[in-house]
Amino acid sequence: MDLLGEPGDWYFEAERGGFAHGIRVRERLASFNTGFQDLEILDTEPFGRVLVLDRALQTSEFDEFMYHEMLVHVPLMSHPAPRRVLIVGGGDGGALRHVLQHPNVDVVQVEIDRAVVDTCREYLPSVSGGSFESPRARLVIGDGIAFMRENPAQFDVIIVDSTDPIGPAVGLFGPSFYEDVARSLCDDGLLAAQSSSPLFMADELKQQVQNMRRIFPLVRTYLGIVPGYPGSLWSYTIGSKRHDPTRVARESIAERLARGAIPTRYYTPDVHHAAFALPPFIADILE
Amino acid sequence: MDLLGEPGDWYFEAERGGFAHGIRVRERLASFNTGFQDLEILDTEPFGRVLVLDRALQTSEFDEFMYHEMLVHVPLMSHPAPRRVLIVGGGDGGALRHVLQHPNVDVVQVEIDRAVVDTCREYLPSVSGGSFESPRARLVIGDGIAFMRENPAQFDVIIVDSTDPIGPAVGLFGPSFYEDVARSLCDDGLLAAQSSSPLFMADELKQQVQNMRRIFPLVRTYLGIVPGYPGSLWSYTIGSKRHDPTRVARESIAERLARGAIPTRYYTPDVHHAAFALPPFIADILE
Repeated sequence: MDLLGEPGDWYFEAERGGFAHGIRVRERLASFNTGFQDLEILDTEPFGRVLVLDRALQTSEFDEFMYHEMLVHVPLMSHPAPRRVLIVGGGDGGALRHVLQHPNVDVVQVEIDRAVVDTCREYLPSVSGGSFESPRARLVIGDGIAFMRENPAQFDVIIVDSTDPIGPAVGLFGPSFYEDVARSLCDDGLLAAQSSSPLFMADELKQQVQNMRRIFPLVRTYLGIVPGYPGSLWSYTIGSKRHDPTRVARESIAERLARGAIPTRYYTPDVHHAAFALPPFIADILE
Repeated sequence: MDLLGEPGDWYFEAERGGFAHGIRVRERLASFNTGFQDLEILDTEPFGRVLVLDRALQTSEFDEFMYHEMLVHVPLMSHPAPRRVLIVGGGDGGALRHVLQHPNVDVVQVEIDRAVVDTCREYLPSVSGGSFESPRARLVIGDGIAFMRENPAQFDVIIVDSTDPIGPAVGLFGPSFYEDVARSLCDDGLLAAQSSSPLFMADELKQQVQNMRRIFPLVRTYLGIVPGYPGSLWSYTIGSKRHDPTRVARESIAERLARGAIPTRYYTPDVHHAAFALPPFIADILE
């Protein structure tokens, strides 16, 4: 099966197991190898402009809020008073923009591939929304693992906004990575990471959760919808030293959303808790 | 863009708006026009055997439980003691099988297209699982609207398991249809229906909810995942005369699941309530 731009003007991704999804392309705006990965910016009919890395759609103008709100607000609301946040990856700037919606939070972002940041700022400016210019944000172009080793006990929340466990992100899923994360977190810190498709990458999800459980006393997987990702249903997993994301009071979330005037189109206090209600066929993957 | 069997051995559905999803076909087992619609049975790599009507995937061996558990258990658990249930459509027998898992329930199913029933019993026997032979089930081949008009004030729950609002099912979405449903329901009865994709058929969802609101005092939309449907995220809507599905006690659901020894792989008391937690961008569709 042909992929990019074939057949006709469709961009397709085919998963293992014989499932594919595709979007109609209006125009290819950029296409080059960054030195780390193949990068494409496509203007598409259903999702507007999209970022594609190594033939996997990463984010789009249409659905970036669905992914980033769940990746960011769930862990930040699970910590009672986050002040220092680290983002590993996330070069499109969407996670950064959503973290900065929380008042009193300073952010360091470590992205290995400068070309992702630069290209997204040019072609997908609404995703980062000027966040890279914030005085509360610091961008480091480099290796997230090395950065965490040099910065122990520094962060309340670490967000891993990575590609899937292939290519440059492969080191962001193993047990030693979570040891580095735990050391870089404060004593009551927590980690959130995207953790693959429960439908089409169940083995990866299971392995990732098992790796986190070796390091963190509390590991909680939750679900969201990202139409640009294969099968739309996506999982995220939090590893936490102390705070349980399933026990945050709805009233506390509502109060913090209101106090920060945080605009959400996906996340609400009820959606926070609903996301942890796993259907048994998904809970069984994690056993 | 070619659809069935093209390109190569893929079966694709392309939505309005430039989104497509596809599954790899191992074998085409049946393909004919029933007099009402085009029917295909395909054996596929990701989903096993699937039923396709008028080029829209209806159900599969892989994901039928996700669709039917949410279509059936949510409304049945929303009624305190359902005894008489009507299914309109649902010729594959999956809704019938799930309704019959509830003890003390008798079911009438009215399906307009006998060929769907016969073909699914032959090629997808696990979906109905012998339900058509149950002494608690009666199958009527005919028009659901005419049947409801002849049977007023008869049913505790009516389940509309239809194709989308095109083809033979077009009459199952308008305001006059819901008037007929309301008359055929008991004084505390309720209706559940699939209500399209909130991502790619938002106009249809909105119209359907508006039509229900003209007839029913309580209208509640909920969400589930059906990977065979475009975008995976699917909506269902309950119209109810008295009982509010969002106010059913979790303990009551758990007790009835246990008492009936109802086996579920998707539905739980927590999933019941989580399904009604609509992200704001979906709740806004319904305004």
